[in-house]
This record gives sequence, C-alpha cells and structure tokens, in this order.
Amino acid sequence: MEQEVSPESLLELLTRNKKELDAIALRFLPQASPNKEISTLYEMMRDYPSRGGKGFRGSLCLLWCELCGGQREDALVAATALELFQNWILIHDDIEDESDLRRGHPALHRKYGVPLSINAGDALHGKMWELLLSNQKKLGEAISFQVLREFSSMLNETTEGQQMELSWTVSKNWEITESDYLLMVTKKSAWYTCISPARIGVILGTISTESTNEDRRRILERLIQMGTDMGIAFQIVDDILNLTASEERYGKEILGDIFEGKRTLMMIHLLSNCNAEERRKIISTLSKPRQEKTVQEAKRIFELMKKKGAVDYASNVARKHAQSGLALYDSICRECGLRSAKSYDTIRLLLEYLVKRDY
Amino acid sequence: MEQEVSPESLLELLTRNKKELDAIALRFLPQASPNKEISTLYEMMRDYPSRGGKGFRGSLCLLWCELCGGQREDALVAATALELFQNWILIHDDIEDESDLRRGHPALHRKYGVPLSINAGDALHGKMWELLLSNQKKLGEAISFQVLREFSSMLNETTEGQQMELSWTVSKNWEITESDYLLMVTKKSAWYTCISPARIGVILGTISTESTNEDRRRILERLIQMGTDMGIAFQIVDDILNLTASEERYGKEILGDIFEGKRTLMMIHLLSNCNAEERRKIISTLSKPRQEKTVQEAKRIFELMKKKGAVDYASNVARKHAQSGLALYDSICRECGLRSAKSYDTIRLLLEYLVKRDY
Repeated sequence: MEQEVSPESLLELLTRNKKELDAIALRFLPQASPNKEISTLYEMMRDYPSRGGKGFRGSLCLLWCELCGGQREDALVAATALELFQNWILIHDDIEDESDLRRGHPALHRKYGVPLSINAGDALHGKMWELLLSNQKKLGEAISFQVLREFSSMLNETTEGQQMELSWTVSKNWEITESDYLLMVTKKSAWYTCISPARIGVILGTISTESTNEDRRRILERLIQMGTDMGIAFQIVDDILNLTASEERYGKEILGDIFEGKRTLMMIHLLSNCNAEERRKIISTLSKPRQEKTVQEAKRIFELMKKKGAVDYASNVARKHAQSGLALYDSICRECGLRSAKSYDTIRLLLEYLVKRDY
Repeated sequence: MEQEVSPESLLELLTRNKKELDAIALRFLPQASPNKEISTLYEMMRDYPSRGGKGFRGSLCLLWCELCGGQREDALVAATALELFQNWILIHDDIEDESDLRRGHPALHRKYGVPLSINAGDALHGKMWELLLSNQKKLGEAISFQVLREFSSMLNETTEGQQMELSWTVSKNWEITESDYLLMVTKKSAWYTCISPARIGVILGTISTESTNEDRRRILERLIQMGTDMGIAFQIVDDILNLTASEERYGKEILGDIFEGKRTLMMIHLLSNCNAEERRKIISTLSKPRQEKTVQEAKRIFELMKKKGAVDYASNVARKHAQSGLALYDSICRECGLRSAKSYDTIRLLLEYLVKRDY
C-alpha cells in the first residue's frame, strides 16, 4: 500500500492538531477576573497549556476517530480534554518529583510555590471534566457518558502507576524487577498516552457507523494490549532521551531521572548487572537528596549504564514492544477492514514516531 | 407548626445519615490489590472517609431531596459524592495549609508524606466523578448530567476561594477588607457546604414531581443567596471554634488558624481596630514560619482579639447572616408550598445547628 504521509508531514500534522487543540483549550479556560487573586489562578491554569508540547495524545484520539470513519469535529473536545489531563497531572507530578523544569521553563511550583500549584492543578482537573460535560449538547448523553467513563478509568490507572513509582522512591526500595517496572509504566504512562486516546477516538469514531456493538467492544478490548505495548515502548524511549537528548530540545533537565533516583529500566538493568560494591555505591548516590548529588556522580552512573549495556538493553525492550504493538495495530486494522482508511498510514507513522523520536 | 424534630434527634439523624453514606463510600472505594504499593494507595484513599466527620453536606442534600418530595434513595450517590469531595479536597487543603491534625489524627501527608498524599487526593477526586457516573443507570442521563454540572461549578468556586486565601498568605497580604473575606468564604466554603448540597438535593428531589422547570430554576437560583448566607455564618462559626473549642472535640489544633496566619474575620477586625504599634507586632508574629511561633504568642493575639471585641463582632456578623439565610429559607419554602413537608423542620434545625454548634 502506498504511503500517504511522510515523516515531515506527520510532524506538520501534529503541530497543526496541537495548535487547534490549544486554541480550544485556551478559549475554554477562564482568562480574566476582576479579582486579582483569581486572575492569578487563571494565569496558572493557562500556563502549562500555553507551553506547547507535542500533542501526541490529542492527535491519536483525532486520528483513531477518523480511522473508524467518524467526524473529526466530534472528537475535538475529548482530544482537548486529553491534553488538559496531561497538563493538570504534570503540575502535580512536577511537585511530587520535585522537578525544576517543564517544557523548557520553570515548573509551575517553582514559579508560584507548592500550595498554589496543588490548587491550580485541582482547578484545571475540574475544568477537564467541565469541558467533557460540554459534549452532552453536541454528541448526546449516551456517548458523552462513555467518554467520561474512559477518562475515569484512565485516571484510576494513572494514579495507581504514579503511586507505585513514588512509593519506591519514598521507601527507598531498589528491589524492583522488570515486571514491576512494566506494570508501573503501563499504568502510569501507557493508559493516558496510548490506550485511552485510541479507545476514546474509536468511541467517537463509531457513533454513526454500521459497526455493531460487539465489533466495537472487540476493538476497544484489543486496544488495551496494543496501547500497553506502544505505551511501554514510548516511556522507555522517554527515559532514554532523559539521559541522552539535548536539554534544549528535550525541555527537562538532562540526567534528571538520575537526580530524581527514578527506577528506569536502565537503572534496574544496571543494578542487577553490577557487582555488590558497585551496587552499594550506586544506591548510596541515588539515595542522597537531590541537591546533594553532583553532576559528576550522575554522569558516572550514566557511564556505567552504558558500559554494562543497560541503554542498549532498554532500547531492545522498547523495540520489541513497539514491534508487537505495531503488529497488533496491523492485525486490528486488517480484521476490521480499516487498512484502506485515510488515517491508517498516519497512525502507523505516528506510532513509529513515538518510539523513534529524538526529543 | 409543631416541631417534629428535637435537637437531640437531629444529631441522631446526622449520625445515621453519615453512617449510611460512609458505608456507601467505603463499599465503593477499592480495598485490596495484589500489588503492595497500590494497596497502600487504597488505604490512603479510605483514610479520611473512615475518620468520621459530621456529614452536614451529605445530610443537607438528602433532606432537600426529601423536602421537595423526592426519593431519598435517588440522592444517596450524590450525597456520598459530596462527602468524597470534602475528603479529597481536605487532603490537598491540609498540605497547602501545612496542617498537622485532621479529625483528631495526623493529617494524611504527616503519615505518608506530601508526594503520595497529593496523588491520593487526585485518585480520590477521580473516584468522586466515577461514583457520580454510576447515577446514569439509576437516574438516567439527563438528571445525572445536571448533577455532574453542579459538582463542576462547586469545584470551580471552591478552588477560586482557596486560591484567594492561599494567595494572601503567600504574598503576606494583610490589607484584607471584610468584603474580600466574605467573597473568599463564599467561594471556599459556602458553595460546597450549603449552596451545592441544597441545589443537588432539589435537582434530585424534583425528578418526578409536578414542579415546572421554571419553578425549579427559580428555587435553584434563590438557593445561591440562602446558601451564601448560611455558608458565611457556618465558616465564621468554624473560625471562632478554632479559637475557642476544646481540641479533643474539635479535632484540629486549637489556635491553629493563628499559627497558620489565616485571615479570619476576627483577625481582620483586630488589625483594623488596634494601633500602629500593635498592628506591627501582630503582623510580625503572624508572618513568622509556623514552627517559629510560640503558643504564648498565639495566645497573646487571641487575648487581644477578645479585648478588642473581634470575637463578639464576628459572632454578630455570623448571626446576621444566619438570620438572613433562615429568613430566605422560610420564604423559599412558603412560596413553593414546602412548609408542610416532613423535612421542613429538620432542615431548619440543621441550618440553626450549623451556626450554633460547639465543635
């Protein structure tokens, strides 16, 4: 089958979608209040949504809707809400991880402090649901409810994954297996990055098509495994980029994951492939408070990772999951007769791009 | 009209309702996971809902539903969700205010740390929406949407009020007028304590009654002013109790508001009724970090408040708002022919109790 999209036009498409969704979000979010304090809250809520980002999740949702023969317009609100989801959860995530930078600028709590930023995250979270409620008028109640339910499941999974990762840090637990890691990443990242955007796109793309409920249910079910594979690959690549990308393009601190003592697949591999003395030293460095770690110490750990083949190992695991996810994508599309749909190639390229990007 | 409820039986009723709502919440919230970290998340989510509390908000919602001739059963889910709202927002509130105690036990972040507690609050917030989505099956989609919209407005108001109060603290702003305070309290407290519980009760109580949409819209509109008055009175009384109640019954630290440097009506009155030197000294004490304030300093400020008549003044303002709220209650009930309803006296007693309680 002839490719209809080039990688360049994929990036253009992502940018165009992101712009459109940002515009919807910023039109929807409140802007001005006669009260000074409330105006500041509005500024805070608009801050992360104004910082750009790639808009993968929103684009995936739009494309799956189109793939199923649905109207792109029907998915715009949900796609925007997916972007808001990421924004409010990142506000809280940055506090929880004590991150300094987000998309090249100081994290929200570095600008406004922790208390106001927790509250602004809650306010933006509320706005996500409010935006989703506006679907009622355009799409009717039954479909709107299905979308709301997907957001609810997505949030359950994401908070469970976040809990797993944070708990390991808080309890200084370094006995993490690869399967612990994969479960954590599936919950923390795969659901909101791949599974739910695709499922919501399918729900909104099949409103008026002839697919039976049974067909639809089957696709939705299979998207869980596909999105799990792609999401795992996406997150591993993200963790590798945290070590190797240029700070300017990546927008976060490089080696930040080592400073945060994150249990990435590379770290897990390193810890189970070094000797007792090396292990003791690494854990002692990682267990220090962030501000007491030096760049040199972080670099030494990174060098050891490379030496022990941890980065190559992680790349391999990512590649295998990506292959398996793409194979599932093809098989879902083949079975459901979606391979001739206009968006078939675009989604395939986007899924490939998720795991091949360099920032 | 003969009173059908005594103050004693009111408290019994509150306790009975609270027990029923707690049971629904704890049945609904997840309990066990094979994963240790996720089990801890579930424990954290169940923590505040297991600590008791008075359940005003849930009871108000049930009673308004009955007052309008509705089925109590129809309001149980929404009333439980109101209690969950309070619980998740208190988790975040306690972090934002650096509170030590909640309902007589250490605040959640004192037990589990800030990062996990922010996340648990988000997870519980998500569960509130999930619970509300379960109304769809029992009540149908249109009514469920109306309830969801009320929760959305309530959350917008609450986060705006919280922002106002936190901003004053962060920016060390002591130039707060009584009208600033009243706006803050209306948003932060009146909406979720009085306005929305009543409005949601009315929405659920008029599903199958003969009241026209116009009647219903008019009651809902008038409840905003009534709930504002009652909510303001409630919060002022709460602030007074923070200074005067016994710690054991109140469940929070006594004089905690002074340690937190909260802009209560008493504080605002004190600051505008003392001389420049006194004002300088008070602000200098209040501006110190919490752990540097001594009990003696806090007590001295409290004594000065009493001396300057700030507590009496605040009690008076609370009483006036309560009177005005109760008058509105009577007039709404008279106009809508609700004075003979079984719950008429109970709600009246509950509204009186809100501002007369001693803990």
